[in-house]
Amino acid sequence: MITVKSRAVNGPDTPFEETEIKRRDLDTQDVLIEIKYSGICHSDIHTAHGEWGPVNYPLVPGHEIAGIVTEVGSEVTKYKVGDRVGVGCMVDSCGECENCEKGEEQYCLKGNVPTYAGIDKYGEQTQGGYSTHIVVTEGFVVRIPDNIGLDAAAPLLCAGITTFSPLNHWNAGPGKKVAVVGMGGLGHMAVKIAHAMGAEVTVLSQTLNKKEDSLKFGAKDHYATSDAETFEKLAGTFDLIINTVSAKLDMDSYLSLLALDGTLVNVGAPAEPLAVNVFSLIGHRRSFAGSMIGGIRETQEMLDFCAEHNIVPNIEVISADQIDEAYDRVLASDVKYRFVIDVSTI
Amino acid sequence: MITVKSRAVNGPDTPFEETEIKRRDLDTQDVLIEIKYSGICHSDIHTAHGEWGPVNYPLVPGHEIAGIVTEVGSEVTKYKVGDRVGVGCMVDSCGECENCEKGEEQYCLKGNVPTYAGIDKYGEQTQGGYSTHIVVTEGFVVRIPDNIGLDAAAPLLCAGITTFSPLNHWNAGPGKKVAVVGMGGLGHMAVKIAHAMGAEVTVLSQTLNKKEDSLKFGAKDHYATSDAETFEKLAGTFDLIINTVSAKLDMDSYLSLLALDGTLVNVGAPAEPLAVNVFSLIGHRRSFAGSMIGGIRETQEMLDFCAEHNIVPNIEVISADQIDEAYDRVLASDVKYRFVIDVSTI
Repeated sequence: MITVKSRAVNGPDTPFEETEIKRRDLDTQDVLIEIKYSGICHSDIHTAHGEWGPVNYPLVPGHEIAGIVTEVGSEVTKYKVGDRVGVGCMVDSCGECENCEKGEEQYCLKGNVPTYAGIDKYGEQTQGGYSTHIVVTEGFVVRIPDNIGLDAAAPLLCAGITTFSPLNHWNAGPGKKVAVVGMGGLGHMAVKIAHAMGAEVTVLSQTLNKKEDSLKFGAKDHYATSDAETFEKLAGTFDLIINTVSAKLDMDSYLSLLALDGTLVNVGAPAEPLAVNVFSLIGHRRSFAGSMIGGIRETQEMLDFCAEHNIVPNIEVISADQIDEAYDRVLASDVKYRFVIDVSTI
Repeated sequence: MITVKSRAVNGPDTPFEETEIKRRDLDTQDVLIEIKYSGICHSDIHTAHGEWGPVNYPLVPGHEIAGIVTEVGSEVTKYKVGDRVGVGCMVDSCGECENCEKGEEQYCLKGNVPTYAGIDKYGEQTQGGYSTHIVVTEGFVVRIPDNIGLDAAAPLLCAGITTFSPLNHWNAGPGKKVAVVGMGGLGHMAVKIAHAMGAEVTVLSQTLNKKEDSLKFGAKDHYATSDAETFEKLAGTFDLIINTVSAKLDMDSYLSLLALDGTLVNVGAPAEPLAVNVFSLIGHRRSFAGSMIGGIRETQEMLDFCAEHNIVPNIEVISADQIDEAYDRVLASDVKYRFVIDVSTI
């Protein structure tokens, strides 16, 4: 067991504090990673604040982890000391169910083990990436391609795969019209990835403020959803809509933007139920779907795809002392487009 | 113009009465059909009662029409006098939009022309199949295979295609687990068709009353949805759920029955919006979709499929004087499984 420096919250309304946590001794298939960068995801905030159910404190969030392998278990074959690696939203799963066997570990029928605030197979609470080191079984570690910086790689492990997976699953590509709702951490990655896949991309954002960025990231258009004309003008247009917004939207308005056989995929998850008028679906054989991160194999595909297409998130690197401030700024949508903690400052 | 005997309602709460309506002179591509049988669909009742918006009375419902061609326009090529033909829920569409060009006329971007209570290209209100004759452009007429009786063929034109189309579109077949919610006119057809396609079919009905029929129609199982254990037992089971119920169901419970990548398709359309918890979708990449009848080419495919597999609806043939009584019995779910009017009694 090793003791490592971390930043943790001790309650739903307390600031981050320096703390020390234990990481387990390496099991035969474990990898010890020296974390270099850790992204800040909106779900870190929900969880730290106890908004997604009760949490055991102290809690170390962080599931966008990039670092270097510093030690490997006796049976590890995929990685060696010095490898550049990443860890995303989960660190284990049953490995035996139908979904795990398909490589869709995120949908493990027994529940995957989340990177923090979960319980691992040893019965211990998992603790995340706002920490100098982490121990993870090699099957849940991915390789970061050489041409992606570790700082920029971190957000790919959640924001990247969460948007890549539905774009990939619903076949975004040449000839397809894709809309991205919300231009935050997830949204800006969705735009870049969908564009690189060859789709024609439109951003639907509350205002026109980020229009210049949208076009720079590869979108063909950017419309303000605060303008009712947007919904009239774009009615029946899109084959696929990726909704990255967790707020409760008027789903019928957004569904009306889908063409025949179009699908609206929520990757954001509002806590309250959404109202759907069935006529919005029946009228053009539309689908309303959901998607959650991606499997490990697909996460590696995503990293390789981003490397090949020179896609990286736009990030603002902060020190560990700025986490609380960063949380406030995420809540105020004041980030372009992802905060990444420089773990050397922990 | 010819004058033909029909049965019509003159207001939302009035009984059916004998009446005469006009049918247009044959345009070059029109077919005059002597109607032999006309099915009674639940949507006839909604429309006759003005529940789906204001209606011009007198109204002649009926969009499950089977009969014989008695006259053809000068340019008609598909049909000749004496042919056994059917007409379903629509009698025209623009023919030029993207969806019409795909053969999905039901999703015509300018709106298809419904068989009754619509406005046709001549500016006249359409009147349906509770009538001795109808004039329809040949492109919206389908051929009834010889081994299907005209009485049994009638309900295929709506109940048949409404269930065949989503089963076909979402690839019901060998290795697929399909659930059918509701065992009425649509539901019993969904069971027979899905079984013939090779899927493993389960019926989800309010009670066990119709279990024997379900198994006879080809279902492997039949569960009562009034029993909460049904939802626990079948959680995560189905690849496809066809929901034929128009009442407001607890969608999250039904969505929980879908396996990874499963789709729940509503063919019933409740007037009120449904509440959907996004976590029900995200957790297993599930989809909630809608589907509306089918295109003309697919309707012909459905008829040919039913002929090949000896599939017909279970019907109760009634006389024209029994329409009001039949409506009451449909509303009381007291029909196994479709009323068909013997049009010779009109």
